[in-house]
Amino acid sequence: MITLTTDFGTSDWFVGTLKCVIAGLAPGVPVIDITHDVPPGDVWAGAFALTATAPYCPPNAVHVAVVDPGVGSHRAAIALQTDHGTFIGPDNGLLSLVVRNRQVRAAHVLSNRDWFLPRVSQTFHGRDVFAPVAARLALGHPIADAGPQLARWEKLTWPEPRPSPHAIDGEVVHVDRYGNAITNIPVELLARHPHLNIVDLMGRAIPTLDCYAAVAVGEPVAVPGSTGYLEVVINQGNAARTFGLSRGSSIHLTSGSQ
Amino acid sequence: MITLTTDFGTSDWFVGTLKCVIAGLAPGVPVIDITHDVPPGDVWAGAFALTATAPYCPPNAVHVAVVDPGVGSHRAAIALQTDHGTFIGPDNGLLSLVVRNRQVRAAHVLSNRDWFLPRVSQTFHGRDVFAPVAARLALGHPIADAGPQLARWEKLTWPEPRPSPHAIDGEVVHVDRYGNAITNIPVELLARHPHLNIVDLMGRAIPTLDCYAAVAVGEPVAVPGSTGYLEVVINQGNAARTFGLSRGSSIHLTSGSQ
Amino acid sequence: MITLTTDFGTSDWFVGTLKCVIAGLAPGVPVIDITHDVPPGDVWAGAFALTATAPYCPPNAVHVAVVDPGVGSHRAAIALQTDHGTFIGPDNGLLSLVVRNRQVRAAHVLSNRDWFLPRVSQTFHGRDVFAPVAARLALGHPIADAGPQLARWEKLTWPEPRPSPHAIDGEVVHVDRYGNAITNIPVELLARHPHLNIVDLMGRAIPTLDCYAAVAVGEPVAVPGSTGYLEVVINQGNAARTFGLSRGSSIHLTSGSQ
Repeated sequence: MITLTTDFGTSDWFVGTLKCVIAGLAPGVPVIDITHDVPPGDVWAGAFALTATAPYCPPNAVHVAVVDPGVGSHRAAIALQTDHGTFIGPDNGLLSLVVRNRQVRAAHVLSNRDWFLPRVSQTFHGRDVFAPVAARLALGHPIADAGPQLARWEKLTWPEPRPSPHAIDGEVVHVDRYGNAITNIPVELLARHPHLNIVDLMGRAIPTLDCYAAVAVGEPVAVPGSTGYLEVVINQGNAARTFGLSRGSSIHLTSGSQ
Repeated sequence: MITLTTDFGTSDWFVGTLKCVIAGLAPGVPVIDITHDVPPGDVWAGAFALTATAPYCPPNAVHVAVVDPGVGSHRAAIALQTDHGTFIGPDNGLLSLVVRNRQVRAAHVLSNRDWFLPRVSQTFHGRDVFAPVAARLALGHPIADAGPQLARWEKLTWPEPRPSPHAIDGEVVHVDRYGNAITNIPVELLARHPHLNIVDLMGRAIPTLDCYAAVAVGEPVAVPGSTGYLEVVINQGNAARTFGLSRGSSIHLTSGSQ
Repeated sequence: MITLTTDFGTSDWFVGTLKCVIAGLAPGVPVIDITHDVPPGDVWAGAFALTATAPYCPPNAVHVAVVDPGVGSHRAAIALQTDHGTFIGPDNGLLSLVVRNRQVRAAHVLSNRDWFLPRVSQTFHGRDVFAPVAARLALGHPIADAGPQLARWEKLTWPEPRPSPHAIDGEVVHVDRYGNAITNIPVELLARHPHLNIVDLMGRAIPTLDCYAAVAVGEPVAVPGSTGYLEVVINQGNAARTFGLSRGSSIHLTSGSQ
């Protein structure tokens, strides 16, 4: 199967065109949309969505990601194969988060023009390059036929949380549609520091508990989120809007009496 | 096949993750999106969407609905089997409208952890509970294996229209993307009261006719809607915005000279 | 396979209902969304989306398009068969752009009620007429069984660019989600007039180059677009917003020293 993660939006025909190209080359291969509403050009947001989803997809999935403000320039098109998914996209960091903690077993530049559409535009490589290459890989064609080996690729910097004896300093890495602020503080780190159970947000002490519903409706709480990171939420409310949180906002986890 | 109705939106990876989980457990089972743009936490809107769609789906469809502000609390996860679809979701009323006029042949709590993902988060039961359970049911596993029988479930109150000899008092139950205001007045009730053919909306007499195009562009009209209920619309316009209609707005159907 | 292009939006159940109808009548036939976010009633936008996508779909695809402000009126429902796709929709011009440069091998009115759902509403022909007809055609039923032959159909007027020795006068035909302004000036016409390489936009000389990245971030450029027409864009910016461009805006291509 193939997944798609893009900033194409859904108001134009871009996504449908990719699916038509895939359907023509690899009929019967299922295509799953991860999201197409990555903000235009926001490579980080696309990279994070891929990271959150890929572990739940079958290991033989081919993941196409296209957030590609440099389309048509000299940035390479690449494919990275791991033991849990093959990732295709522009070499601008978009694929770097999802392979961060995995062994990349094969990395190749996509340069075999026999795998592209006959006419390659300078502005829509999703349709002309990435979709047809994904179709070939999903059909089982070897990744080595896609182009020469790739030694290194662009990497986004994951902001590691900074633990100290009395606190963990982290930051927001994603705000989701509910206004939940996902941080870079892994749940495992929390488990090793159970006394750090208060998020100090602009002077307000937000408790770390198990689920949204552990606090009253309208109250803030920090919970172990479904992506494996601490999240700051408001039960049935919008934490990001209420607290003015966005990507990069500081999160200070400290100890409390709770 | 499986359908999905959620308030997940499409800007995050939530829907894609559910589909990946299903694809891994039940490869080849088609998944159809009903909508993912239910307003966050709006159980009624999700329940109504399900009601409008399920009659048009194959009778063996498994319908997953997740509008779940109480995720992680003590609300149960349930499955309701009817002769036209099996419905899975949180026990918060979300499934109650679609089974309102149907015989529920089996009702079960979802508590068999063998059917869940190995690790169940407290915040994303769509991925960890509902999707894998749907996959099992779609593959034909018996609903009784999902967990113990359920005696009763949460119900939303459907607002029944109040007919009198000279009028029917109803209300708006949904405003769609065109601004059409769907009421709770069934088309069959209209048919039994053909002299009640005027919607009196803030002093304006809106005729009840067969289709939008029965009035001039920009003019309001009430029509028998595709969900089986009277709708107030403006031909090629937005009735809800123009008349300030939203869910719960009163609709007074009376007799006219038309 | 079947594609869908509509103005249904995704916040209601409309699209899901069409897919359920198709799944019931033609199980296993893949359905691809082109877009459902055509602005309500905007026949041109739907027609253009179809035109941009259909060439990339398998030749046996059945394309359903529903932007249908006149639903329930006397406008006909029609099917147009070409050597690269069969197109189904209301006879309001929606199908006319995609067949503009193709031979229509068969044109039929959709009037065979055996192909519709048993009850046809006056407001949702997508569900009751177009989806079930598409299912039948996708299964290989002959188009001639859909209804009588159709001699002529509604046509939208494509605005032809006006070339002169020293300039080409064109206009914007679509603004995409990135704010890129797609014009009616075909890439082939550009190729025949290589000296016309400046778009004069409100006194600003915008160069015609190969790709977005040929100019600095934030700078405007005109490029041969992926639909085969000249596009005015801002590298990593929003040209339509910046220059106030919308459908119908004049585009003046002239010669420059570049």
